[in-house]
Amino acid sequence: MKRRQFLKTAGAGAAVGIGAGVIASPAIAQAMPEVKWRVTSSFPKSLDTIYGASEVMAKAVSEATDGKFQIQVFAAGEIVPGLQAADAVTNGTVEMCHTASYYYVGKDPTYAFGTAVPFGLNARQQNAWFYHGGGMELLNEFYKKANIYALPGGNTGCQMGGWFRKEIKTVADMQGVKMRIGGFAGQVMSKLGVVPQQIAGGDIYPALEKGTIDAAEWVGPADDEKLGFNKVAPFYYYPGWWEGGAALHFFINTAKWDALPKLYKSVLTTAAALANIDMQAKYDARNPAALKRLVGAGAQLRPFSQEIMEACLKASKEVYAETSAKNADFKKIYEAMSAFRGDEYLWFQIAEYSYDNFLIRARAANQL
Amino acid sequence: MKRRQFLKTAGAGAAVGIGAGVIASPAIAQAMPEVKWRVTSSFPKSLDTIYGASEVMAKAVSEATDGKFQIQVFAAGEIVPGLQAADAVTNGTVEMCHTASYYYVGKDPTYAFGTAVPFGLNARQQNAWFYHGGGMELLNEFYKKANIYALPGGNTGCQMGGWFRKEIKTVADMQGVKMRIGGFAGQVMSKLGVVPQQIAGGDIYPALEKGTIDAAEWVGPADDEKLGFNKVAPFYYYPGWWEGGAALHFFINTAKWDALPKLYKSVLTTAAALANIDMQAKYDARNPAALKRLVGAGAQLRPFSQEIMEACLKASKEVYAETSAKNADFKKIYEAMSAFRGDEYLWFQIAEYSYDNFLIRARAANQL
Repeated sequence: MKRRQFLKTAGAGAAVGIGAGVIASPAIAQAMPEVKWRVTSSFPKSLDTIYGASEVMAKAVSEATDGKFQIQVFAAGEIVPGLQAADAVTNGTVEMCHTASYYYVGKDPTYAFGTAVPFGLNARQQNAWFYHGGGMELLNEFYKKANIYALPGGNTGCQMGGWFRKEIKTVADMQGVKMRIGGFAGQVMSKLGVVPQQIAGGDIYPALEKGTIDAAEWVGPADDEKLGFNKVAPFYYYPGWWEGGAALHFFINTAKWDALPKLYKSVLTTAAALANIDMQAKYDARNPAALKRLVGAGAQLRPFSQEIMEACLKASKEVYAETSAKNADFKKIYEAMSAFRGDEYLWFQIAEYSYDNFLIRARAANQL
Repeated sequence: MKRRQFLKTAGAGAAVGIGAGVIASPAIAQAMPEVKWRVTSSFPKSLDTIYGASEVMAKAVSEATDGKFQIQVFAAGEIVPGLQAADAVTNGTVEMCHTASYYYVGKDPTYAFGTAVPFGLNARQQNAWFYHGGGMELLNEFYKKANIYALPGGNTGCQMGGWFRKEIKTVADMQGVKMRIGGFAGQVMSKLGVVPQQIAGGDIYPALEKGTIDAAEWVGPADDEKLGFNKVAPFYYYPGWWEGGAALHFFINTAKWDALPKLYKSVLTTAAALANIDMQAKYDARNPAALKRLVGAGAQLRPFSQEIMEACLKASKEVYAETSAKNADFKKIYEAMSAFRGDEYLWFQIAEYSYDNFLIRARAANQL
């Protein structure tokens, strides 16, 4: 390679590693240029577990590059509103965002698979599918249409089914319930007579208090506790069948990603994996104490009845069929996810489930 | 800082970042010296999921440092035998190893908590405890006595209970069963009349075939399939109550760790987290197909009966009490783990368990 050509290529960030081991310092300087990015989170700082994933990622990237690759974290609303984070990546306003893919089902329902779909994969299965089941390949093929390259970046685990002002014991009890629930799950709920409402986080509490709405789903104990729903809607249902393992992603503008030196691509990929496992661990560590405090403050735990769960599954399958008939991307990814899920639960029912089952019963019987 | 002092400190690898942003290239050169390490795995290359965690870690470290920090991976036996990996770290033969902490319960039973203990934490709970429940702080305080600094580096998920030549339906059936099972779980088993045997991986199959032993536990479908146990001991029991979420660690010699530049410490920590989440995802993605093939080849799945599980729990608690009475380190970590486990299952029984329970039943009923 001629020197002129080398410099030109290096300027485009594509010459990483060419001189590795030959000329030490210049090679490192080429590999580690000063890069400053912005990541806009879809979440406020107050939801520190989920918001914190961006900080964990950015810190790891900065430390690994001796501060040469800096990613500044912005909370929802500081650059763009939380639900416009992906658009800001698509149009290059920011280099990346941390978001829930399913916020964008209004653009295309296929976005749901990046986070969670009704009766979909649990958290560990999501990671297995993303990393080693072809999931990220399929999703990134789809995201590419919006100039997005995605890396998994956290999981909440199975969410709760939300807060209800009154008990709902049967499918009939769901008729006319005004519930704050969005996107794909809202479509399923509406088949059962629920009236889905789109309400921003900060407005949910007063709406529940006044009775403008009857129910609201949010995340799980650690996050729900911050919003105080137990005071105005005491019945806390589970499980959140529409998000059995809700995954977050870092969405990166494809042109910005492509221009990144190889070293930085690797650092960012690894840092995202750290944020992924760290966020799940943090939720798992924080949820138990929050649950205890919520129950102590009056929250009444209620499982969705078998009748309700079965009706929700049936309605979900109708929505899947209707959407698949209209959308080839959706159909393709739904079929891949479904096949993977079938295999996963075949296995999880054996060792994992029987182990948890025994421990749960032994703990409840005070035998542990 | 005077130049002489700066150079001296930099030579010891402690001056990382001092010049950051002030003098670009020299600062990077100081931060990224050439470092070559060796990691000895406790596992053979043939167990590629678990062995592969070292490769995943080493590749991420090399890529993040433009090849300046190289960690060469050695399989069990290439430098030291698999069960002497920790000793090789303690005495500085190698800088690090990838191993299961519970291999070293012969030195001190406290080592068990790094991997898994009977009726302990499941895989997600292990990570929650390690990263955000004080687990790694406690373990590293203990490991320090052996010059070891540990980073979590993988999990198998809940393991299977092993392969038996005959069915065991009751505790009485366990009397006199010669079972290949090691360490802490072997102690528990012996309370129930089982005769624990220590046999290396390659010798298990012929021992089972000849009837020298009656049973053997290994890992789970993906690894067990490679050894062909289904041909000579068809009853495949679950769950492996002695390893509900068996964790692996990278053990690092503390002096080598302390001497590492700050940048490399960060890179290695993040790379270990990648290996951690990646190994679990790989096992979760590979186990279902392996399980199907094993069942197709004659493996007969059997759950341990409730009577057996309860007897094993009771025996485990006796071993915990006996060991705690003799060993303050063990007692301290056992109490911390137990308290954490109680809280975790309080929470996991709500959303996680009820979600999995519904999905498992729906799949079995062909309703998904």
